[in-house]
Amino acid sequence: MCDACVIDTVKNRMLSRRSFFRAAAAGAATVAAASSGALSPALAQAPTKATDLTHELYEEFPTFFGEQQFWREQKFNYKEHKFNLFELRVNEHTGTHLDAPLHFSEDGTSVAEIPVSDLVVPLAVIDIREKAAANADAQLTPDDIKAWIAANGELPERACVALLSGWDKHLGTDKFRNADGEGKMHFPGFHVEAVQYLAENSSAVGIAVDTLSLDYGISPDFATHYSWLASGHWGLEAAANLDQLPARGATLVVGAPKVRGGTGGPTRVIALA
Amino acid sequence: MCDACVIDTVKNRMLSRRSFFRAAAAGAATVAAASSGALSPALAQAPTKATDLTHELYEEFPTFFGEQQFWREQKFNYKEHKFNLFELRVNEHTGTHLDAPLHFSEDGTSVAEIPVSDLVVPLAVIDIREKAAANADAQLTPDDIKAWIAANGELPERACVALLSGWDKHLGTDKFRNADGEGKMHFPGFHVEAVQYLAENSSAVGIAVDTLSLDYGISPDFATHYSWLASGHWGLEAAANLDQLPARGATLVVGAPKVRGGTGGPTRVIALA
Ligand SMILES: [Zn+2]
Ligand SMILES: [Zn+2]
Repeated sequence: MCDACVIDTVKNRMLSRRSFFRAAAAGAATVAAASSGALSPALAQAPTKATDLTHELYEEFPTFFGEQQFWREQKFNYKEHKFNLFELRVNEHTGTHLDAPLHFSEDGTSVAEIPVSDLVVPLAVIDIREKAAANADAQLTPDDIKAWIAANGELPERACVALLSGWDKHLGTDKFRNADGEGKMHFPGFHVEAVQYLAENSSAVGIAVDTLSLDYGISPDFATHYSWLASGHWGLEAAANLDQLPARGATLVVGAPKVRGGTGGPTRVIALA
Repeated sequence: MCDACVIDTVKNRMLSRRSFFRAAAAGAATVAAASSGALSPALAQAPTKATDLTHELYEEFPTFFGEQQFWREQKFNYKEHKFNLFELRVNEHTGTHLDAPLHFSEDGTSVAEIPVSDLVVPLAVIDIREKAAANADAQLTPDDIKAWIAANGELPERACVALLSGWDKHLGTDKFRNADGEGKMHFPGFHVEAVQYLAENSSAVGIAVDTLSLDYGISPDFATHYSWLASGHWGLEAAANLDQLPARGATLVVGAPKVRGGTGGPTRVIALA
């Protein structure tokens, strides 16, 4: 399928959902102006523990494109100036980071425009470690979502649905990108049908993966990115430590950078449970 | 007082606290490795509302030094590439951002090393708007802290103490930096005696201001920065919307960037109440 065909197909598929999102976004702007919003009623417990879902960001952090995406320059140092300060240069899509709808749409919501109440959400963790260990090209499918629901009940309102493949443990080894001889990567991701299922059957606002991309590594067309982001949802990539959380019950706080017009960015992600 | 003298005085003042902090930090490293930690028992309520304490970051965001500190370059655009992506360049101390201990110490804790349980903390908001409106050089003093305690009870365990001067409302006008004819800035901050009081009489882990600096604008010596940061605490600068929160009862989630060896950085700050 040529790039343009893929895009047209995806666009048609999401047109109705998209006009809905536009209306929702217009409403959201009002909420954002007020700088506050009501949280999902699913967040019913006082938190007693924080878990950091963020990888440290450093110059050699592996990237989707395989090239360095983070640099720093020390502008002041303690010996000479009595304080330390760096200037950073970073590609928005580096390290543990958010994809805003604008990343894969012409005029979708920027990272600064996502309503704050969509950044503090109940988390559903779907464990596909077994099939991911057996097959690096494994995808999270609608059946995995249905199995989670059968075991844990309906998805909580305005949730983030996270794919736990165990891939965060490969950071620092070649297995994290897992590129073959032709440079094609092999790691798990969300099947496009899984995000379509979520868009149609749930109020989920975000998805999260512990790999370098929402799509599985060998995806030829970013089908999951287009379907999920352009329909007004966010995606979190390269999350860490999802294995430390319960399948249901944690609250995710997404510390996305509030860059005007940004398409995403390195994000501090903390789970409360 | 010469720069070096100021620094020596401050260093002597905080030596004992500092060795304590070193020991604590060594312990904290273990916690960080586990990527999770127990939260302050003061966080006893389930959150129902999120308030964004973050200003949008944009190229002309006013800075302490008066020069531009944030730039972007669009690397991919939707028309041509079917997705959008920016590369950002940013001074760590720009916009709503965190100061880590390393910012004002030779080998203090970096922003990535702050234990995650010190980034989800009860918030105490001290309202000095009245005196700040009357005097741009107003400082938050130990008396203001004592008055808050008299009205609201003891400071919660491992709190962030926030100065509400109302200065966030001046963003977009010259009053935010409020520089005089000689370039000296006039805005409120924490008196050095206030942070000494907190260090000695509370378990507070952080302070927050709605201005450009922890020190008031005309400070000649960064006395508050040296005293508070080098003794192993963090500081949040240019917070927004503190006026929307109760004096006591909100939980602060500090989405500081997890940059290895970083001295701070633009931070998404969300209050839960
Ligand atoms: Zn991305
Ligand atoms: Zn700073």
